[in-house]
Amino acid sequence: MFRQRLTDCADAIQTHLDHVLSEFERLPVVDAMAHATNGGKRLRGFLVLESARLHDIDPKAAIWPATAIEALHAYSLVHDDLPCMDDDDLRRGQPTVHKKWEEATAVLAGDALQTLAFEMVTRPEVGTGDVRANLAASLAKASGAQGMVLGQALDIAAETSIVPLSLAQVTTLQQGKTGALIEWSATVGARMSDSDLAPLSTYSKALGLAFQIADDILDVEGDAATIGKATGKDAGAGKATFVSLLGLDEAKRRASQLVESASDALSVYGNNATALRDAAAFVVARKN
Amino acid sequence: MFRQRLTDCADAIQTHLDHVLSEFERLPVVDAMAHATNGGKRLRGFLVLESARLHDIDPKAAIWPATAIEALHAYSLVHDDLPCMDDDDLRRGQPTVHKKWEEATAVLAGDALQTLAFEMVTRPEVGTGDVRANLAASLAKASGAQGMVLGQALDIAAETSIVPLSLAQVTTLQQGKTGALIEWSATVGARMSDSDLAPLSTYSKALGLAFQIADDILDVEGDAATIGKATGKDAGAGKATFVSLLGLDEAKRRASQLVESASDALSVYGNNATALRDAAAFVVARKN
Repeated sequence: MFRQRLTDCADAIQTHLDHVLSEFERLPVVDAMAHATNGGKRLRGFLVLESARLHDIDPKAAIWPATAIEALHAYSLVHDDLPCMDDDDLRRGQPTVHKKWEEATAVLAGDALQTLAFEMVTRPEVGTGDVRANLAASLAKASGAQGMVLGQALDIAAETSIVPLSLAQVTTLQQGKTGALIEWSATVGARMSDSDLAPLSTYSKALGLAFQIADDILDVEGDAATIGKATGKDAGAGKATFVSLLGLDEAKRRASQLVESASDALSVYGNNATALRDAAAFVVARKN
Repeated sequence: MFRQRLTDCADAIQTHLDHVLSEFERLPVVDAMAHATNGGKRLRGFLVLESARLHDIDPKAAIWPATAIEALHAYSLVHDDLPCMDDDDLRRGQPTVHKKWEEATAVLAGDALQTLAFEMVTRPEVGTGDVRANLAASLAKASGAQGMVLGQALDIAAETSIVPLSLAQVTTLQQGKTGALIEWSATVGARMSDSDLAPLSTYSKALGLAFQIADDILDVEGDAATIGKATGKDAGAGKATFVSLLGLDEAKRRASQLVESASDALSVYGNNATALRDAAAFVVARKN
Protein backbone atom coordinates (compact mmCIF):
# COMPACT_ATOMS: atom_id res chain seq x y z
CA MET A 1 0.00 0.00 0.00
CA PHE A 2 2.88 2.37 0.83
CA ARG A 3 4.58 1.42 -2.44
CA GLN A 4 1.40 2.19 -4.33
CA ARG A 5 1.08 5.57 -2.62
CA LEU A 6 4.73 6.39 -3.45
CA THR A 7 4.12 5.44 -7.09
CA ASP A 8 0.91 7.49 -7.24
CA CYS A 9 2.73 10.54 -5.86
CA ALA A 10 5.59 10.08 -8.32
CA ASP A 11 3.11 9.86 -11.20
CA ALA A 12 1.22 12.96 -10.08
CA ILE A 13 4.46 14.92 -9.79
CA GLN A 14 5.67 13.76 -13.21
CA THR A 15 2.38 14.75 -14.86
CA HIS A 16 2.51 18.14 -13.20
CA LEU A 17 6.14 18.73 -14.18
CA ASP A 18 5.44 17.74 -17.79
CA HIS A 19 2.61 20.25 -17.87
CA VAL A 20 4.69 23.08 -16.38
CA LEU A 21 7.65 22.47 -18.69
CA SER A 22 5.39 22.20 -21.75
CA GLU A 23 4.67 25.93 -21.36
CA PHE A 24 8.35 26.80 -21.91
CA GLU A 25 10.01 27.33 -25.28
CA ARG A 26 11.42 23.98 -26.45
CA LEU A 27 15.14 24.76 -26.23
CA PRO A 28 17.87 22.23 -25.32
CA VAL A 29 18.01 23.72 -21.82
CA VAL A 30 14.32 22.92 -21.30
CA ASP A 31 14.82 19.37 -22.64
CA ALA A 32 17.70 19.09 -20.19
CA MET A 33 15.45 20.26 -17.36
CA ALA A 34 12.91 17.58 -18.31
CA HIS A 35 15.64 14.92 -18.49
CA ALA A 36 17.05 15.91 -15.11
CA THR A 37 13.67 15.76 -13.38
CA ASN A 38 12.59 12.47 -14.92
CA GLY A 39 12.55 9.38 -12.69
CA GLY A 40 13.86 8.93 -9.19
CA LYS A 41 11.97 7.82 -6.11
CA ARG A 42 10.31 11.23 -5.55
CA LEU A 43 10.72 10.72 -1.82
CA ARG A 44 10.80 14.48 -1.17
CA GLY A 45 7.68 15.09 -3.22
CA PHE A 46 5.97 12.21 -1.43
CA LEU A 47 6.81 13.78 1.93
CA VAL A 48 5.27 17.07 0.79
CA LEU A 49 2.07 15.42 -0.41
CA GLU A 50 1.73 13.20 2.67
CA SER A 51 2.36 16.01 5.15
CA ALA A 52 -0.17 18.12 3.22
CA ARG A 53 -2.71 15.28 3.39
CA LEU A 54 -2.16 15.02 7.17
CA HIS A 55 -3.14 18.69 7.41
CA ASP A 56 -6.13 18.51 5.04
CA ILE A 57 -4.48 20.66 2.37
CA ASP A 58 -6.05 20.53 -1.10
CA PRO A 59 -3.84 18.23 -3.26
CA LYS A 60 -4.19 20.76 -6.11
CA ALA A 61 -2.34 23.28 -3.94
CA ALA A 62 0.17 20.78 -2.50
CA ILE A 63 1.26 19.50 -5.91
CA TRP A 64 3.12 22.80 -6.48
CA PRO A 65 5.55 22.53 -3.54
CA ALA A 66 5.82 18.76 -4.17
CA THR A 67 6.95 19.42 -7.72
CA ALA A 68 9.09 22.37 -6.61
CA ILE A 69 11.15 20.29 -4.21
CA GLU A 70 11.79 17.69 -6.92
CA ALA A 71 12.94 20.46 -9.29
CA LEU A 72 15.22 21.85 -6.59
CA HIS A 73 16.60 18.39 -5.78
CA ALA A 74 17.21 17.79 -9.50
CA TYR A 75 19.11 21.09 -9.79
CA SER A 76 21.44 19.99 -6.99
CA LEU A 77 22.06 16.64 -8.71
CA VAL A 78 22.76 18.21 -12.13
CA HIS A 79 25.36 20.55 -10.62
CA ASP A 80 26.76 17.84 -8.34
CA ASP A 81 27.37 15.59 -11.34
CA LEU A 82 29.42 18.24 -13.22
CA PRO A 83 33.06 17.40 -14.05
CA CYS A 84 34.29 20.05 -11.60
CA MET A 85 32.17 18.50 -8.81
CA ASP A 86 31.65 14.71 -8.58
CA ASP A 87 32.21 14.11 -12.32
CA ASP A 88 29.50 11.47 -12.73
CA ASP A 89 28.44 10.03 -16.09
CA LEU A 90 25.36 8.20 -14.87
CA ARG A 91 22.34 9.22 -12.82
CA ARG A 92 19.19 7.14 -12.35
CA GLY A 93 20.60 4.78 -15.00
CA GLN A 94 20.68 7.57 -17.60
CA PRO A 95 23.54 9.75 -18.87
CA THR A 96 23.98 12.87 -16.74
CA VAL A 97 22.96 16.21 -18.30
CA HIS A 98 26.49 17.34 -19.17
CA LYS A 99 27.09 13.95 -20.82
CA LYS A 100 23.89 14.02 -22.87
CA TRP A 101 24.26 17.74 -23.77
CA GLU A 102 27.32 19.67 -22.59
CA GLU A 103 28.49 21.47 -19.47
CA ALA A 104 27.07 24.88 -20.35
CA THR A 105 23.59 23.40 -20.75
CA ALA A 106 24.00 21.49 -17.48
CA VAL A 107 24.95 24.66 -15.58
CA LEU A 108 22.01 26.57 -17.10
CA ALA A 109 19.48 23.76 -16.67
CA GLY A 110 20.44 23.44 -13.01
CA ASP A 111 20.14 27.20 -12.55
CA ALA A 112 16.72 27.26 -14.20
CA LEU A 113 15.48 24.29 -12.13
CA GLN A 114 16.34 26.16 -8.96
CA THR A 115 14.48 29.22 -10.24
CA LEU A 116 11.53 27.04 -11.25
CA ALA A 117 11.29 25.70 -7.71
CA PHE A 118 10.80 29.22 -6.36
CA GLU A 119 8.37 30.03 -9.14
CA MET A 120 6.29 26.97 -8.25
CA VAL A 121 6.08 27.53 -4.48
CA THR A 122 4.91 31.10 -5.05
CA ARG A 123 2.18 30.30 -7.58
CA PRO A 124 -1.22 31.80 -6.68
CA GLU A 125 -2.71 28.27 -6.60
CA VAL A 126 -0.57 27.42 -3.56
CA GLY A 127 -2.42 29.59 -1.05
CA THR A 128 -2.38 32.98 0.66
CA GLY A 129 0.51 35.38 0.32
CA ASP A 130 1.66 34.42 3.82
CA VAL A 131 1.79 30.72 2.92
CA ARG A 132 3.61 31.32 -0.36
CA ALA A 133 6.12 33.69 1.24
CA ASN A 134 6.69 31.22 4.10
CA LEU A 135 7.32 28.34 1.67
CA ALA A 136 9.73 30.40 -0.45
CA ALA A 137 11.62 31.79 2.55
CA SER A 138 11.97 28.39 4.23
CA LEU A 139 12.93 26.66 0.98
CA ALA A 140 15.64 29.29 0.41
CA LYS A 141 16.96 28.82 3.92
CA ALA A 142 17.00 25.02 3.58
CA SER A 143 18.75 25.02 0.22
CA GLY A 144 21.21 27.93 0.59
CA ALA A 145 24.52 28.61 2.29
CA GLN A 146 23.07 27.70 5.70
CA GLY A 147 21.53 24.45 4.41
CA MET A 148 22.19 22.33 1.35
CA VAL A 149 24.99 24.48 -0.09
CA LEU A 150 26.67 24.54 3.33
CA GLY A 151 26.69 20.73 3.26
CA GLN A 152 28.13 20.71 -0.24
CA ALA A 153 30.79 23.27 0.68
CA LEU A 154 31.80 21.20 3.72
CA ASP A 155 31.99 18.19 1.40
CA ILE A 156 34.36 20.02 -0.97
CA ALA A 157 36.45 21.25 1.98
CA ALA A 158 36.69 17.68 3.32
CA GLU A 159 38.06 16.44 0.01
CA THR A 160 41.09 18.69 0.20
CA SER A 161 41.66 18.17 3.92
CA ILE A 162 44.22 15.62 5.11
CA VAL A 163 42.36 15.05 8.40
CA PRO A 164 39.29 12.83 7.89
CA LEU A 165 36.00 14.20 9.25
CA SER A 166 34.69 13.18 12.65
CA LEU A 167 31.25 11.66 13.17
CA ALA A 168 29.91 15.03 14.35
CA GLN A 169 31.29 16.72 11.23
CA VAL A 170 29.88 14.08 8.86
CA THR A 171 26.52 14.49 10.61
CA THR A 172 26.57 18.29 10.18
CA LEU A 173 27.60 17.90 6.55
CA GLN A 174 24.81 15.46 5.80
CA GLN A 175 22.18 17.42 7.71
CA GLY A 176 22.95 20.25 5.32
CA LYS A 177 23.45 18.25 2.15
CA THR A 178 20.34 16.05 2.30
CA GLY A 179 18.71 16.65 5.69
CA ALA A 180 17.60 20.26 5.19
CA LEU A 181 15.53 19.56 2.06
CA ILE A 182 14.01 16.40 3.55
CA GLU A 183 12.99 18.40 6.61
CA TRP A 184 11.51 21.15 4.45
CA SER A 185 9.53 18.58 2.46
CA ALA A 186 8.03 16.92 5.51
CA THR A 187 7.04 20.20 7.16
CA VAL A 188 5.21 21.69 4.14
CA GLY A 189 1.80 20.50 5.31
CA ALA A 190 2.27 22.19 8.68
CA ARG A 191 3.52 25.36 6.99
CA MET A 192 0.54 25.47 4.62
CA SER A 193 -1.93 25.12 7.52
CA ASP A 194 0.00 27.32 9.95
CA SER A 195 0.30 24.37 12.37
CA ASP A 196 3.05 23.28 14.76
CA LEU A 197 6.12 22.19 12.77
CA ALA A 198 7.72 20.28 15.66
CA PRO A 199 6.42 16.69 15.15
CA LEU A 200 7.19 16.67 11.41
CA SER A 201 10.48 18.42 12.02
CA THR A 202 11.63 15.81 14.56
CA TYR A 203 10.39 13.02 12.29
CA SER A 204 12.24 14.35 9.26
CA LYS A 205 15.52 15.03 11.04
CA ALA A 206 15.66 11.35 12.02
CA LEU A 207 14.48 10.32 8.57
CA GLY A 208 17.13 12.43 6.81
CA LEU A 209 19.93 10.94 8.87
CA ALA A 210 18.60 7.40 8.37
CA PHE A 211 18.42 8.12 4.64
CA GLN A 212 22.05 9.18 4.51
CA ILE A 213 23.28 6.23 6.59
CA ALA A 214 21.37 3.93 4.23
CA ASP A 215 23.05 5.71 1.29
CA ASP A 216 26.47 5.05 2.75
CA ILE A 217 25.54 1.39 3.33
CA LEU A 218 24.34 1.11 -0.28
CA ASP A 219 27.61 2.60 -1.51
CA VAL A 220 29.35 -0.40 0.09
CA GLU A 221 26.79 -3.17 -0.32
CA GLY A 222 24.71 -2.01 -3.27
CA ASP A 223 24.67 -2.99 -6.88
CA ALA A 224 25.44 -0.22 -9.42
CA ALA A 225 22.91 -1.55 -11.92
CA THR A 226 20.08 -1.43 -9.34
CA ILE A 227 21.08 1.98 -7.96
CA GLY A 228 21.62 3.52 -11.38
CA LYS A 229 24.88 5.25 -10.43
CA ALA A 230 28.43 4.21 -9.57
CA THR A 231 29.02 2.52 -6.18
CA GLY A 232 32.11 2.18 -3.99
CA LYS A 233 33.09 5.76 -4.90
CA ASP A 234 33.22 7.05 -1.34
CA ALA A 235 35.08 4.07 0.07
CA GLY A 236 37.50 4.18 -2.88
CA ALA A 237 38.17 7.88 -2.31
CA GLY A 238 38.92 7.28 1.39
CA LYS A 239 36.01 9.58 2.29
CA ALA A 240 34.69 9.58 5.87
CA THR A 241 31.16 8.11 5.83
CA PHE A 242 28.85 6.72 8.49
CA VAL A 243 30.02 3.24 7.48
CA SER A 244 33.74 4.09 7.64
CA LEU A 245 33.26 5.81 10.99
CA LEU A 246 30.84 3.37 12.66
CA GLY A 247 31.40 0.11 10.85
CA LEU A 248 28.68 -1.63 8.83
CA ASP A 249 26.87 -3.32 11.74
CA GLU A 250 26.70 -0.23 13.95
CA ALA A 251 25.60 1.89 10.98
CA LYS A 252 22.71 -0.52 10.36
CA ARG A 253 21.78 -0.50 14.04
CA ARG A 254 21.70 3.31 14.13
CA ALA A 255 19.62 3.48 10.97
CA SER A 256 17.04 1.16 12.60
CA GLN A 257 17.02 3.28 15.75
CA LEU A 258 16.42 6.40 13.69
CA VAL A 259 13.47 4.78 11.92
CA GLU A 260 11.94 4.13 15.33
CA SER A 261 12.57 7.70 16.53
CA ALA A 262 11.03 9.01 13.31
CA SER A 263 7.91 6.90 13.84
CA ASP A 264 7.58 7.89 17.49
CA ALA A 265 7.69 11.58 16.62
CA LEU A 266 4.44 11.22 14.69
CA SER A 267 2.35 9.88 17.60
CA VAL A 268 0.21 13.04 17.60
CA TYR A 269 -1.06 12.09 14.14
CA GLY A 270 -2.08 8.56 15.17
CA ASN A 271 -2.89 6.13 12.38
CA ASN A 272 -3.14 8.95 9.88
CA ALA A 273 0.66 8.98 9.67
CA THR A 274 1.11 5.33 8.70
CA ALA A 275 2.40 6.22 5.24
CA LEU A 276 5.06 8.52 6.70
CA ARG A 277 6.10 5.80 9.18
CA ASP A 278 6.31 3.32 6.30
CA ALA A 279 8.43 5.84 4.39
CA ALA A 280 10.99 5.83 7.21
CA ALA A 281 11.19 2.03 7.11
CA PHE A 282 11.38 2.12 3.31
CA VAL A 283 14.26 4.58 3.31
CA VAL A 284 16.43 2.16 5.26
CA ALA A 285 15.29 -1.01 3.48
CA ARG A 286 15.58 0.34 -0.09
CA LYS A 287 17.99 -1.21 -2.58
CA ASN A 288 18.45 1.97 -4.66
CA MET B 1 23.53 64.66 -8.11
CA PHE B 2 22.54 61.49 -9.95
CA ARG B 3 26.09 60.13 -9.59
CA GLN B 4 25.97 60.82 -5.88
CA ARG B 5 22.62 59.03 -5.57
CA LEU B 6 23.99 56.03 -7.50
CA THR B 7 27.03 55.91 -5.19
CA ASP B 8 24.85 56.22 -2.08
CA CYS B 9 22.67 53.31 -3.26
CA ALA B 10 25.74 51.21 -4.05
CA ASP B 11 27.14 51.89 -0.57
CA ALA B 12 23.86 51.04 1.15
CA ILE B 13 23.63 47.78 -0.79
CA GLN B 14 27.24 46.86 0.00
CA THR B 15 26.74 47.50 3.72
CA HIS B 16 23.58 45.41 3.71
CA LEU B 17 25.22 42.55 1.81
CA ASP B 18 28.21 42.53 4.15
CA HIS B 19 25.85 42.29 7.08
CA VAL B 20 23.81 39.44 5.57
CA LEU B 21 26.90 37.44 4.57
CA SER B 22 28.53 37.97 7.97
CA GLU B 23 25.84 35.72 9.45
CA PHE B 24 27.00 32.76 7.34
CA GLU B 25 29.74 30.32 8.30
CA ARG B 26 33.03 31.64 6.87
CA LEU B 27 33.70 28.96 4.25
CA PRO B 28 35.43 29.56 0.89
CA VAL B 29 32.02 29.48 -0.81
CA VAL B 30 30.86 32.39 1.35
CA ASP B 31 34.06 34.34 0.64
CA ALA B 32 33.42 33.66 -3.04
CA MET B 33 29.87 34.99 -2.69
CA ALA B 34 31.26 38.17 -1.11
CA HIS B 35 33.87 38.52 -3.86
CA ALA B 36 31.28 38.04 -6.60
CA THR B 37 28.93 40.66 -5.17
CA ASN B 38 31.62 43.26 -4.50
CA GLY B 39 31.74 46.30 -6.78
CA GLY B 40 29.87 46.97 -9.99
CA LYS B 41 27.59 49.89 -10.80
CA ARG B 42 24.64 48.49 -8.80
CA LEU B 43 22.32 49.82 -11.49
CA ARG B 44 19.68 47.18 -10.73
CA GLY B 45 19.77 47.87 -7.01
CA PHE B 46 19.54 51.60 -7.74
CA LEU B 47 16.43 51.01 -9.86
CA VAL B 48 14.83 49.07 -7.00
CA LEU B 49 15.58 51.79 -4.44
CA GLU B 50 14.48 54.64 -6.74
CA SER B 51 11.24 52.96 -7.80
CA ALA B 52 10.58 52.24 -4.10
CA ARG B 53 11.21 55.89 -3.22
CA LEU B 54 8.76 56.97 -5.97
CA HIS B 55 6.11 54.89 -4.22
CA ASP B 56 6.95 55.99 -0.66
CA ILE B 57 8.24 52.57 0.40
CA ASP B 58 10.33 52.47 3.57
CA PRO B 59 14.01 52.22 2.51
CA LYS B 60 14.53 49.63 5.27
CA ALA B 61 12.09 47.36 3.41
CA ALA B 62 13.35 48.23 -0.09
CA ILE B 63 16.99 47.46 0.73
CA TRP B 64 16.13 43.73 0.75
CA PRO B 65 14.95 43.45 -2.88
CA ALA B 66 17.71 45.90 -3.91
CA THR B 67 20.34 43.63 -2.41
CA ALA B 68 18.54 40.54 -3.71
CA ILE B 69 18.68 41.67 -7.33
CA GLU B 70 22.40 42.38 -7.02
CA ALA B 71 22.93 38.87 -5.58
CA LEU B 72 20.93 37.37 -8.41
CA HIS B 73 22.80 39.42 -11.02
CA ALA B 74 26.11 38.33 -9.45
CA TYR B 75 25.07 34.65 -9.63
CA SER B 76 24.45 35.02 -13.36
CA LEU B 77 27.87 36.62 -13.87
CA VAL B 78 29.71 33.95 -11.85
CA HIS B 79 28.13 31.16 -13.91
CA ASP B 80 28.50 33.12 -17.19
CA ASP B 81 32.23 33.49 -16.56
CA LEU B 82 32.78 29.71 -16.10
CA PRO B 83 35.14 27.96 -18.56
CA CYS B 84 32.21 26.04 -20.10
CA MET B 85 30.33 29.31 -20.67
CA ASP B 86 32.18 32.54 -21.63
CA ASP B 87 35.47 31.47 -20.02
CA ASP B 88 36.38 34.89 -18.63
CA ASP B 89 39.33 35.51 -16.30
CA LEU B 90 38.43 39.05 -15.35
CA ARG B 91 35.30 40.71 -13.99
CA ARG B 92 35.08 44.24 -12.60
CA GLY B 93 38.87 44.35 -12.84
CA GLN B 94 39.21 41.37 -10.47
CA PRO B 95 39.86 37.68 -11.12
CA THR B 96 36.62 35.76 -11.71
CA VAL B 97 35.49 33.37 -8.98
CA HIS B 98 36.68 30.18 -10.70
CA LYS B 99 40.09 31.83 -11.24
CA LYS B 100 40.46 33.01 -7.63
CA TRP B 101 39.10 29.72 -6.19
CA GLU B 102 38.15 26.86 -8.53
CA GLU B 103 35.22 25.84 -10.67
CA ALA B 104 33.38 23.83 -8.01
CA THR B 105 33.34 26.83 -5.68
CA ALA B 106 32.17 29.07 -8.54
CA VAL B 107 29.26 26.74 -9.36
CA LEU B 108 28.28 26.54 -5.68
CA ALA B 109 28.72 30.26 -4.96
CA GLY B 110 26.52 31.11 -7.95
CA ASP B 111 23.91 28.61 -6.80
CA ALA B 112 23.92 30.02 -3.28
CA LEU B 113 23.68 33.62 -4.53
CA GLN B 114 20.56 32.74 -6.45
CA THR B 115 19.09 31.11 -3.35
CA LEU B 116 20.09 34.13 -1.26
CA ALA B 117 18.16 36.42 -3.61
CA PHE B 118 14.95 34.49 -2.95
CA GLU B 119 15.71 34.41 0.76
CA MET B 120 16.10 38.18 0.79
CA VAL B 121 12.92 39.09 -1.12
CA THR B 122 10.87 36.92 1.23
CA ARG B 123 12.26 38.30 4.49
CA PRO B 124 9.56 39.41 6.94
CA GLU B 125 11.03 42.96 6.86
CA VAL B 126 10.01 43.34 3.20
CA GLY B 127 6.27 43.60 3.77
CA THR B 128 3.06 41.59 3.79
CA GLY B 129 2.90 37.99 2.63
CA ASP B 130 1.29 39.16 -0.60
CA VAL B 131 4.13 41.57 -1.35
CA ARG B 132 6.83 39.03 -0.53
CA ALA B 133 5.14 36.29 -2.59
CA ASN B 134 4.67 38.73 -5.49
CA LEU B 135 8.35 39.73 -5.43
CA ALA B 136 9.54 36.12 -5.29
CA ALA B 137 7.17 34.94 -8.03
CA SER B 138 8.01 37.80 -10.37
CA LEU B 139 11.74 37.51 -9.69
CA ALA B 140 11.57 33.79 -10.50
CA LYS B 141 9.72 34.48 -13.72
CA ALA B 142 12.18 37.22 -14.76
CA SER B 143 15.26 35.11 -14.06
CA GLY B 144 14.14 31.65 -15.18
CA ALA B 145 13.63 29.74 -18.40
CA GLN B 146 11.14 32.34 -19.64
CA GLY B 147 13.45 35.26 -18.79
CA MET B 148 17.18 35.50 -18.14
CA VAL B 149 17.96 31.80 -18.65
CA LEU B 150 15.97 31.87 -21.91
CA GLY B 151 18.24 34.69 -23.12
CA GLN B 152 21.34 32.75 -22.09
CA ALA B 153 20.08 29.58 -23.78
CA LEU B 154 19.38 31.50 -26.99
CA ASP B 155 22.90 32.90 -26.73
CA ILE B 156 24.40 29.40 -26.48
CA ALA B 157 22.22 28.20 -29.38
CA ALA B 158 23.38 31.16 -31.49
CA GLU B 159 27.02 30.24 -30.94
CA THR B 160 26.62 26.85 -32.59
CA SER B 161 24.33 28.10 -35.37
CA ILE B 162 25.80 28.88 -38.79
CA VAL B 163 23.09 31.45 -39.54
CA PRO B 164 23.71 34.73 -37.70
CA LEU B 165 20.80 36.06 -35.62
CA SER B 166 18.43 38.67 -37.02
CA LEU B 167 17.77 41.99 -35.28
CA ALA B 168 14.49 40.62 -33.91
CA GLN B 169 16.27 37.54 -32.53
CA VAL B 170 19.06 39.57 -30.91
CA THR B 171 16.38 41.79 -29.35
CA THR B 172 14.50 38.78 -27.91
CA LEU B 173 17.77 37.31 -26.64
CA GLN B 174 18.78 40.52 -24.91
CA GLN B 175 15.34 41.20 -23.47
CA GLY B 176 15.73 37.86 -21.72
CA LYS B 177 19.38 38.07 -20.85
CA THR B 178 19.49 41.56 -19.35
CA GLY B 179 16.09 43.15 -19.96
CA ALA B 180 13.98 40.94 -17.69
CA LEU B 181 16.00 41.65 -14.53
CA ILE B 182 16.19 45.39 -15.28
CA GLU B 183 12.43 45.45 -15.73
CA TRP B 184 11.92 43.57 -12.48
CA SER B 185 14.19 46.00 -10.64
CA ALA B 186 12.39 49.10 -11.89
CA THR B 187 8.93 47.74 -11.09
CA VAL B 188 9.67 46.73 -7.48
CA GLY B 189 8.32 49.98 -6.05
CA ALA B 190 5.01 49.53 -7.87
CA ARG B 191 4.85 45.88 -6.76
CA MET B 192 5.51 46.77 -3.13
CA SER B 193 2.72 49.38 -3.13
CA ASP B 194 0.31 47.40 -5.31
CA SER B 195 0.35 50.21 -7.91
CA ASP B 196 0.16 50.17 -11.71
CA LEU B 197 3.32 48.57 -13.13
CA ALA B 198 2.86 50.01 -16.64
CA PRO B 199 4.86 53.29 -16.50
CA LEU B 200 7.91 51.67 -14.86
CA SER B 201 7.56 48.63 -17.09
CA THR B 202 7.61 50.73 -20.29
CA TYR B 203 10.49 52.81 -18.92
CA SER B 204 12.58 49.78 -18.03
CA LYS B 205 12.00 47.93 -21.30
CA ALA B 206 13.46 50.92 -23.18
CA LEU B 207 16.20 51.27 -20.56
CA GLY B 208 17.16 47.60 -20.82
CA LEU B 209 17.48 47.73 -24.57
CA ALA B 210 19.45 51.00 -24.43
CA PHE B 211 21.72 49.36 -21.83
CA GLN B 212 22.46 46.42 -24.11
CA ILE B 213 23.06 48.56 -27.19
CA ALA B 214 25.48 50.63 -25.10
CA ASP B 215 27.18 47.39 -24.02
CA ASP B 216 27.66 46.36 -27.64
CA ILE B 217 29.05 49.82 -28.47
CA LEU B 218 31.46 49.56 -25.51
CA ASP B 219 32.61 46.14 -26.73
CA VAL B 220 33.77 47.89 -29.93
CA GLU B 221 34.82 51.33 -28.67
CA GLY B 222 35.59 50.72 -25.01
CA ASP B 223 38.82 50.31 -23.15
CA ALA B 224 39.34 46.99 -21.33
CA ALA B 225 41.09 48.65 -18.39
CA THR B 226 38.16 51.03 -17.80
CA ILE B 227 35.50 48.37 -18.28
CA GLY B 228 37.28 45.79 -16.13
CA LYS B 229 36.70 42.92 -18.55
CA ALA B 230 37.88 41.89 -22.02
CA THR B 231 36.56 43.89 -25.02
CA GLY B 232 36.22 43.03 -28.69
CA LYS B 233 35.15 39.50 -27.75
CA ASP B 234 31.79 39.61 -29.53
CA ALA B 235 33.13 41.20 -32.71
CA GLY B 236 36.06 38.76 -32.69
CA ALA B 237 33.72 35.80 -32.37
CA GLY B 238 31.60 37.01 -35.30
CA LYS B 239 28.61 37.27 -32.96
CA ALA B 240 25.53 39.19 -34.12
CA THR B 241 25.21 42.32 -31.96
CA PHE B 242 23.26 45.58 -32.28
CA VAL B 243 26.44 47.15 -33.66
CA SER B 244 27.11 44.42 -36.21
CA LEU B 245 23.46 44.49 -37.32
CA LEU B 246 22.83 48.24 -37.30
CA GLY B 247 26.27 49.78 -37.67
CA LEU B 248 27.82 52.00 -35.02
CA ASP B 249 26.04 55.25 -35.95
CA GLU B 250 22.56 53.76 -36.17
CA ALA B 251 23.15 51.86 -32.92
CA LYS B 252 24.00 55.13 -31.19
CA ARG B 253 20.94 56.85 -32.68
CA ARG B 254 18.65 54.06 -31.45
CA ALA B 255 20.18 54.15 -27.98
CA SER B 256 19.44 57.90 -27.78
CA GLN B 257 15.88 57.34 -28.97
CA LEU B 258 15.38 54.69 -26.31
CA VAL B 259 16.61 57.05 -23.60
CA GLU B 260 13.93 59.52 -24.72
CA SER B 261 11.20 56.87 -24.75
CA ALA B 262 12.27 55.76 -21.28
CA SER B 263 12.04 59.33 -19.96
CA ASP B 264 8.67 59.93 -21.59
CA ALA B 265 7.19 56.83 -19.96
CA LEU B 266 7.71 58.38 -16.53
CA SER B 267 5.62 61.53 -17.15
CA VAL B 268 3.04 60.40 -14.57
CA TYR B 269 5.70 60.73 -11.87
CA GLY B 270 6.65 64.31 -12.86
CA ASN B 271 9.85 65.70 -11.37
CA ASN B 272 9.95 62.97 -8.80
CA ALA B 273 11.40 60.65 -11.47
CA THR B 274 14.40 62.81 -12.37
CA ALA B 275 16.89 60.30 -10.98
CA LEU B 276 15.39 57.50 -13.09
CA ARG B 277 15.50 59.72 -16.20
CA ASP B 278 19.13 60.53 -15.42
CA ALA B 279 19.79 56.80 -15.05
CA ALA B 280 18.61 56.22 -18.62
CA ALA B 281 20.97 58.91 -19.93
CA PHE B 282 23.78 57.51 -17.77
CA VAL B 283 23.33 54.00 -19.11
CA VAL B 284 24.06 55.17 -22.64
CA ALA B 285 26.82 57.64 -21.75
CA ARG B 286 28.75 55.30 -19.41
CA LYS B 287 32.32 54.22 -20.19
CA ASN B 288 32.15 50.94 -18.28
